[in-house]
Amino acid sequence: MDIPNLRWWGWGTLERTFPLKDRPRFWPTLRAWLGLPEDLEERPPVPLEEIDLRPSRLDDPMLTALRRLVGGEWVRTDRRARVEHACGKAYRDLVRLRAGLVPNPPDAVVYPADEGQVAAVLAWAADRDVVVIPFGGGSTVLGAVEPPPGDRPVITVDMARLDRLMALDRESWTARIQAGATGPEIEAQLGEHGFTLGHFPQSFEFSTLGGWIATRGAGQASTGYGKIEDMTLAVRMVTPVGILETREAPALATGPSLLDIAVGSEGTYGVITEATMRVRPRPQVQDYRGFLFRTLEEGIAALRDLMHHGPRPTIARLSDAPETAASLALAHEHRGLRALLEQGFEGYLARRGYKMAPDGSCFLLLGYDGAVSRVARRWRHAEETCRDHGGFPLGRSAGESWKRDRFAHPYLRDILLGVGVMVDTVETATTWSNLLHLYDEMTRAIRAAIRASGGGPGYVMTHISHIYEEGASLYITFLGRQTAGQEVEQWWEVKRAATEAVLSAGGALSHHHGIGRDHAHWLGQEIGPVGMRILRALKERLDPAGVMNPGVLGL
Amino acid sequence: MDIPNLRWWGWGTLERTFPLKDRPRFWPTLRAWLGLPEDLEERPPVPLEEIDLRPSRLDDPMLTALRRLVGGEWVRTDRRARVEHACGKAYRDLVRLRAGLVPNPPDAVVYPADEGQVAAVLAWAADRDVVVIPFGGGSTVLGAVEPPPGDRPVITVDMARLDRLMALDRESWTARIQAGATGPEIEAQLGEHGFTLGHFPQSFEFSTLGGWIATRGAGQASTGYGKIEDMTLAVRMVTPVGILETREAPALATGPSLLDIAVGSEGTYGVITEATMRVRPRPQVQDYRGFLFRTLEEGIAALRDLMHHGPRPTIARLSDAPETAASLALAHEHRGLRALLEQGFEGYLARRGYKMAPDGSCFLLLGYDGAVSRVARRWRHAEETCRDHGGFPLGRSAGESWKRDRFAHPYLRDILLGVGVMVDTVETATTWSNLLHLYDEMTRAIRAAIRASGGGPGYVMTHISHIYEEGASLYITFLGRQTAGQEVEQWWEVKRAATEAVLSAGGALSHHHGIGRDHAHWLGQEIGPVGMRILRALKERLDPAGVMNPGVLGL
Repeated sequence: MDIPNLRWWGWGTLERTFPLKDRPRFWPTLRAWLGLPEDLEERPPVPLEEIDLRPSRLDDPMLTALRRLVGGEWVRTDRRARVEHACGKAYRDLVRLRAGLVPNPPDAVVYPADEGQVAAVLAWAADRDVVVIPFGGGSTVLGAVEPPPGDRPVITVDMARLDRLMALDRESWTARIQAGATGPEIEAQLGEHGFTLGHFPQSFEFSTLGGWIATRGAGQASTGYGKIEDMTLAVRMVTPVGILETREAPALATGPSLLDIAVGSEGTYGVITEATMRVRPRPQVQDYRGFLFRTLEEGIAALRDLMHHGPRPTIARLSDAPETAASLALAHEHRGLRALLEQGFEGYLARRGYKMAPDGSCFLLLGYDGAVSRVARRWRHAEETCRDHGGFPLGRSAGESWKRDRFAHPYLRDILLGVGVMVDTVETATTWSNLLHLYDEMTRAIRAAIRASGGGPGYVMTHISHIYEEGASLYITFLGRQTAGQEVEQWWEVKRAATEAVLSAGGALSHHHGIGRDHAHWLGQEIGPVGMRILRALKERLDPAGVMNPGVLGL
Repeated sequence: MDIPNLRWWGWGTLERTFPLKDRPRFWPTLRAWLGLPEDLEERPPVPLEEIDLRPSRLDDPMLTALRRLVGGEWVRTDRRARVEHACGKAYRDLVRLRAGLVPNPPDAVVYPADEGQVAAVLAWAADRDVVVIPFGGGSTVLGAVEPPPGDRPVITVDMARLDRLMALDRESWTARIQAGATGPEIEAQLGEHGFTLGHFPQSFEFSTLGGWIATRGAGQASTGYGKIEDMTLAVRMVTPVGILETREAPALATGPSLLDIAVGSEGTYGVITEATMRVRPRPQVQDYRGFLFRTLEEGIAALRDLMHHGPRPTIARLSDAPETAASLALAHEHRGLRALLEQGFEGYLARRGYKMAPDGSCFLLLGYDGAVSRVARRWRHAEETCRDHGGFPLGRSAGESWKRDRFAHPYLRDILLGVGVMVDTVETATTWSNLLHLYDEMTRAIRAAIRASGGGPGYVMTHISHIYEEGASLYITFLGRQTAGQEVEQWWEVKRAATEAVLSAGGALSHHHGIGRDHAHWLGQEIGPVGMRILRALKERLDPAGVMNPGVLGL
């Protein structure tokens, strides 16, 4: 259900933030790296009431009709609801929200109670040429829930009321879950029966099953539990021409995979209302530990070895040297690796060739979930493999410290935006043999683009995660100084350079964020003319009126 | 490349057969079970020359044009080529071939040398309203390579010349392989570099990569290596409107999966010309062993336990009591379990509750591939799990004996057809919680249908294989007496009853054989009207002239 006190101009809820109190190195380090001024001026977001909001374009008879479909209180046209649903949580979105720029809010936000109401709302909209934006948690970073410009009225269909575990099959380890359930809602309901879905994206607390499936998301533990498409056994999707229901079977040979058409459809063909998911018993332990590698190459070799020869980790996340240095600058004084270093450990490591600097060592977070004895056995092998490749074991405290902050970093982004720092991420994936080439090309391109955009020296850092037998994902975070008044244009310059570097170096346009509106520009290049023809053919047949999330996937 | 001495009226090559010499129990047992007469009359297939074959409907200018595209010798219109490509290897196909009934042979068989020639042939055909049947090994059991009736000329595009390993990425464990390569061609080329694909369907020797992908096939070792769709990283598919090429990345979030539209397309949208496959180093050992379980339920519990708690097997195949009894009747006198039983072992087992009879014990074949030490470790756990569920370990000889015959059973089918026995298979998949229900319903329906069709008492036997965390596949073989002159109608009665039982009991229409023409009748029931709408939308846009394998997938 709806989460109270959402921070409409930023991430999460108003009660929370990223705690910088016990992290004294953060600001000085950041200032030095980005060339920020000594006195950072804090610019708060404009108050909600001051946003110049276009009145709803739905007239009273239309609103009345909608209210008849879902119940009076479940059609909202108030300022807060419309602003909260006006865009996602991309850097660009937050820049615009903080400045009070909301040019295309939805004309109403509708909360259906069940699949029947979703179907009724879609039929109503298709008949009246009203645009429909399916909305889960709204955490997209690619503009996938933003109403398109134009004259057609827009309703956002918020799936928050469809938040229930419908059925659990303890024998088959499957669960039928409604698409509007958030991460915590899913884990709480499964947890009552001793099960877990195991999908923990950074947006976990504020994103939904339907959103994960519609965008082909990945959680931090995807190496152990799979990407969302690996977990999804079957879906139900309401389209304007009827309901697509796929078979609940472990595997099929019944033509092209309809499931894999619904998965990744990003609301352009319909609204996913529920899915049957593969679930697992909650693990007895989650044993996450840290390692240091002298070079990125050695760390990669260890990851590849683990994927090729086992034991396959539940979670693996190898930071390059800049990200390792940034984590240390941001680390809690009395916790994890930072605490160890403060206790004189730094010299000991340095003598062994592990250096703590943006051109120094690389931190690996590695974790195994499962039964105590099995995890212990796996750790014996995994530690040996890491040591074989030059890894220095840092123990569990580094892992615990990562766990503590795992969902908190988006709060830090709000703090950075408040003081004029540009920060965004780019993700991709490729084969092992192409990984370092892609990494080099992306890093170089993004650094150059930040500088060219007037962003100062900038800071670019990367981790390798979501590892597979044949390759891995690259997740790059970049920071620079905002060019005041040109924030969105500046960001787009860097984003464009990054994306073009990805594609020319053989990376995927996206591994788990999706396409939305921002990547649509490059989708034709990624999938080719025949690929685009396929997406359009599906669009025309499933959404003949063209009301479903227009513009997303370039459709 | 082309295989010499193919048995046009049956399985495999003329040099080989199923060796019944040292299996003295087979005929007496079969006679008793099926109620066959003492003197089985052997009916040989009609000679090739006596088949009444429609002349090719392609005129000389058309054939000349085709020859210009692929080279003179690579367009065949001779009797043998046209008959060999007239249908697949289903029971129905072989009944018709043996009787000399070939009403719809292709008008020419074309062997392109490369992707460019495939594209040229498709363009030529689409311009002239000539039907194109993509042909790999022709081992379909669902009519997927049979020219449709009607007036349009038909060419079959045999992919045999595209049989090469194009690239091997030793670091990423991927290989780009041409679609026309057969199982042995793939394994030989990968084997030179120490790699394996690990896809071993029963048709292994006579089926191709492109066929496996186009039908979503599964090999016997799918539990360890994955179904073909799990192994396929990317494809290239030539359609009449251009080439679809999907990205070689370990995972994607770039909209609906185009890869999973090409995989399973059964030649209706285009011709798959090559694929990038996940490959693995050849295992040091393949340690396959046998177990007996007193009941099917206990065997299933062991399989589920292995999938839920490990170690996950490479191969698992649990025969029900009738299949176990049939295997013993068919077993080599001096090998495997049969040999043990002959040595007085039967009484020992019986005293422990393991009975060898159609209502007795169930045989499990379980195997692990990998490095010696790892396989040994896994076997220690696996044997314990099997024992916990009542399994009696029979050791390696039973496993070796299975390995020896693993690709030979289709030869036995030819022998049976020659003496008037109907034999066919039905396969499906479902969740663990529905498995026994589905099994009971199918078995009952097929038995009743054989009897009603005049097939006598019949014999129905099943194995559970291709196991998953959430469920498994069921593979049913049924036998009965042919009703002379009505063989196809009789078979269709049984097939219909079996399929309707599958669907009404919640099973998938197919787990790995595909749809072809025979299952097309039920595809609408399996995937619903929105699903059919999707398949048709793709057809219209990718094959506007409707020349690609018409009728398959009901398109």
